[in-house]
Amino acid sequence: MSNPPSRPSFGMIGLGTMGRNLLLNLADHGFPVSGYDKDATKVALLAKEGQGKPVTGYADLASFVGSLQTPRAVMLLVPAGPIVDAVVAELTPVLQPGDLIIDGGNSHFTDTERRAKALAETGFHFFGMGVSGGEEGARFGPSMMPGGDKQAYRVVQPMFEAIAAHVGDEPCVTYIGPGAAGHFVKMVHNGIEYGLMQLIAETYGVLKTGLGMDNAAIGEVFAGWNAGRLQSFLLDITKDIFKFKAPDTDHLLLDDIKDEARSKGTGKWTSQVAMDLETPLPTVDMAVALRDLSKYKALREQLQGMYGPAAGALPGVEREAFLTQLEQAFYFSMAITYAQGMQLLSRASVEFKYELNLAEIAKIWRGGCIIRSGFLTEIYNAYQHTPDLAHLLLDEQVRNVVSAAVPGARAVVAAAATAGLAVPAYMASLSYFDSFRTGRLPSNLIQAQRDYFGAHTYELIGKEGVFHTQWAPELEDASNKKDAQVDEHGPSKEPVKPNS
Amino acid sequence: MSNPPSRPSFGMIGLGTMGRNLLLNLADHGFPVSGYDKDATKVALLAKEGQGKPVTGYADLASFVGSLQTPRAVMLLVPAGPIVDAVVAELTPVLQPGDLIIDGGNSHFTDTERRAKALAETGFHFFGMGVSGGEEGARFGPSMMPGGDKQAYRVVQPMFEAIAAHVGDEPCVTYIGPGAAGHFVKMVHNGIEYGLMQLIAETYGVLKTGLGMDNAAIGEVFAGWNAGRLQSFLLDITKDIFKFKAPDTDHLLLDDIKDEARSKGTGKWTSQVAMDLETPLPTVDMAVALRDLSKYKALREQLQGMYGPAAGALPGVEREAFLTQLEQAFYFSMAITYAQGMQLLSRASVEFKYELNLAEIAKIWRGGCIIRSGFLTEIYNAYQHTPDLAHLLLDEQVRNVVSAAVPGARAVVAAAATAGLAVPAYMASLSYFDSFRTGRLPSNLIQAQRDYFGAHTYELIGKEGVFHTQWAPELEDASNKKDAQVDEHGPSKEPVKPNS
Repeated sequence: MSNPPSRPSFGMIGLGTMGRNLLLNLADHGFPVSGYDKDATKVALLAKEGQGKPVTGYADLASFVGSLQTPRAVMLLVPAGPIVDAVVAELTPVLQPGDLIIDGGNSHFTDTERRAKALAETGFHFFGMGVSGGEEGARFGPSMMPGGDKQAYRVVQPMFEAIAAHVGDEPCVTYIGPGAAGHFVKMVHNGIEYGLMQLIAETYGVLKTGLGMDNAAIGEVFAGWNAGRLQSFLLDITKDIFKFKAPDTDHLLLDDIKDEARSKGTGKWTSQVAMDLETPLPTVDMAVALRDLSKYKALREQLQGMYGPAAGALPGVEREAFLTQLEQAFYFSMAITYAQGMQLLSRASVEFKYELNLAEIAKIWRGGCIIRSGFLTEIYNAYQHTPDLAHLLLDEQVRNVVSAAVPGARAVVAAAATAGLAVPAYMASLSYFDSFRTGRLPSNLIQAQRDYFGAHTYELIGKEGVFHTQWAPELEDASNKKDAQVDEHGPSKEPVKPNS
Repeated sequence: MSNPPSRPSFGMIGLGTMGRNLLLNLADHGFPVSGYDKDATKVALLAKEGQGKPVTGYADLASFVGSLQTPRAVMLLVPAGPIVDAVVAELTPVLQPGDLIIDGGNSHFTDTERRAKALAETGFHFFGMGVSGGEEGARFGPSMMPGGDKQAYRVVQPMFEAIAAHVGDEPCVTYIGPGAAGHFVKMVHNGIEYGLMQLIAETYGVLKTGLGMDNAAIGEVFAGWNAGRLQSFLLDITKDIFKFKAPDTDHLLLDDIKDEARSKGTGKWTSQVAMDLETPLPTVDMAVALRDLSKYKALREQLQGMYGPAAGALPGVEREAFLTQLEQAFYFSMAITYAQGMQLLSRASVEFKYELNLAEIAKIWRGGCIIRSGFLTEIYNAYQHTPDLAHLLLDEQVRNVVSAAVPGARAVVAAAATAGLAVPAYMASLSYFDSFRTGRLPSNLIQAQRDYFGAHTYELIGKEGVFHTQWAPELEDASNKKDAQVDEHGPSKEPVKPNS
């Protein structure tokens, strides 16, 4: 914040609430800034909100660009997709090589990769930056994940560090890595967010249906958790939601809201990319599936009628003891969800050469963003202690806290399965854990099957190479099989060898 | 098969075992055919294998094309990807408009869509055709899923119907739909296959670890199941695998095979597309995740050491009674896996205007392909009875058999969760079922959270429109929040409003 320049070097394109708020945040920290939007009413709003602050709005692109001293840093907060390309195309002719363009939206990382390459060839510096914190975060302290040209980051670093959320003295912004690293990390942040939100929703279902608790009691459980080791932004707002009455009524607004969950796609992207990178992410996958499933409302109502009775009280559980187990189960599943996300970051770092510093990422997630929580300090400590930790579950301290929580997870899943109460993300988290702690999985059978029907080969323990076996020797004599056909009741008893 | 033409109209490009076998199959049914491969040794192999049959091989493209009478039907069995484009580019200059090009590989349906459009403009008919049945199936009866130009299909229909697997009198081939419908349906077939294989592998794990059974006893369970209502190709080959000794030893080859499962990507494609189409497919997602997880062998061994004791015998189960429950659990989860795949087909049919006939698809899957099973007759009957059935679980007969199997699924999942034995696909199937039979899900909380932190709005029960609420009223007075910062222990107690 020392000696901010007298003329703006930072400009914002897109003066929606997010864009205006980031500018006001910068101005409050002493940085003169410019804003541009085609929509003159938004420019006027900025002028009103920014009275007395070093912030100027423009409805004309040339004047906007002219107001900035070089090297300029121009940030875009416009909808992800083709609009970003259109704005960049409009912008590059009026900027100068050496200027910095920052895409602050939720762009898909492959788009960012493409844009970074194209712009590098023209001499512009380009940043894809994930911003978490929404409108209020933008105004008073977001968590920011910039990725791209490291030298160029130095230009904007003092500004971003000043306006970011802080944990103690430490700003929730750091250079993430080259190329699309920033947008990739923000995407995974959102994937984790999907998993955690689904876990909270299932917890609500268990408390309400499984334990028969009313909203006031449920709200107290969430408030209690948030006051303990489960402290997190998402539980914090959940506890608030359980206090919020529908206008002019005596019941919660929550009870009036449709149970069909929407999404903007970033969780889906995370799951799809994890599959491309061959990294298991089942809790996030399940959260995405459940958002989709929730939308089939009419079908769900039909199936409830057909496959009743609906889930009811959990059998044979004592409420207080079960609440202790449920707290453990949530702690366990939350840890597993973060662990899945961190492993995906490790894998992407190798695949895309992002050179991610996972400790730094955990550090900047501790404040300002949706998934901030007390547990992120454990994650930060784990990667601080062992920067190249292959999996979060390998950390000794994490092992201690997770191991202690496992019995609760088992109890909750077993009780819910028995009672017919859906806990998909809890089950996915436990499945992941129990699979990963199995040295010898039954997956050898899958390899045998693949080789049997598709000659896909297999590997042997303690022996180099790949092997193929003729598992059904009777097939060697093809002449016997000429008229082989399956019968009405299914396939031939002499299996043929179809391909996958 | 009446009056086959004296000169070939059908030719094959790519004379690997699959390609040669399909030609020999055609020749056996009286159709004269030509084959082409750049590799003269393969052409020679075809000549040898086809002695006395109306089949001729060529290593020269012009001669191959010249050998065919118009309209020609030229099928490609070459690796999916750019090679298909290269062969098509080589082929179109020497064919004539009106000729039919058939891609019989496992191409991604979006590639097929693109090729169909491009070729239609040049006057060629194009078919993307899924072929299941592998080398032996190709030789003696595959299941085939052709999609594309319906009129053009008439030309090849008699040939394909003659060589396909048959169930009774009915051939396992039918026109699937326009565009890439054939490849799409084959992809979903493979996704279901991933789910079923994972379920069988988990069953193996339960029998071996949970019940402590030896390979002989495990093989008997699979053989017994395959002799009953669970009859299927995959259980059939599994029972064989449990008899197959490693060469010159007294133990099963299976025991020597590495527990790291590979894949060729079609299961992953299915899960990724299901997410794009907002259709839940959690059993397949989980099967994909588990193939990926299995490859982290060293990590699994480390985690087993840290998070032991390893899963052992299921507590308090009586073997015979539990085997009955396990058979139910498998039946239930198998039905759920098919149901997920069928729903994806329904959804894709609308989205891509494929006009799929799900009864016909179930019908041709009953023979020749990997996922053929007795249960496909139930599926066939369900869609035969109600062609526009919105979900397989809505069928009355399916309801009867699935409902009866639910208690077994609950018992297996609860026991495995308690014992620490991984059953991810069983859990995913039960999760899906219990979520879908819940008329009122806790997903309203997710909508409330999204609106709280991101102003994403929500819908209300019984009221049109979307709504937004300022959930945290204290935030209205922004001046109070200027210095809001999170503390060392997590986020501020007064939640800011970050965006997703």
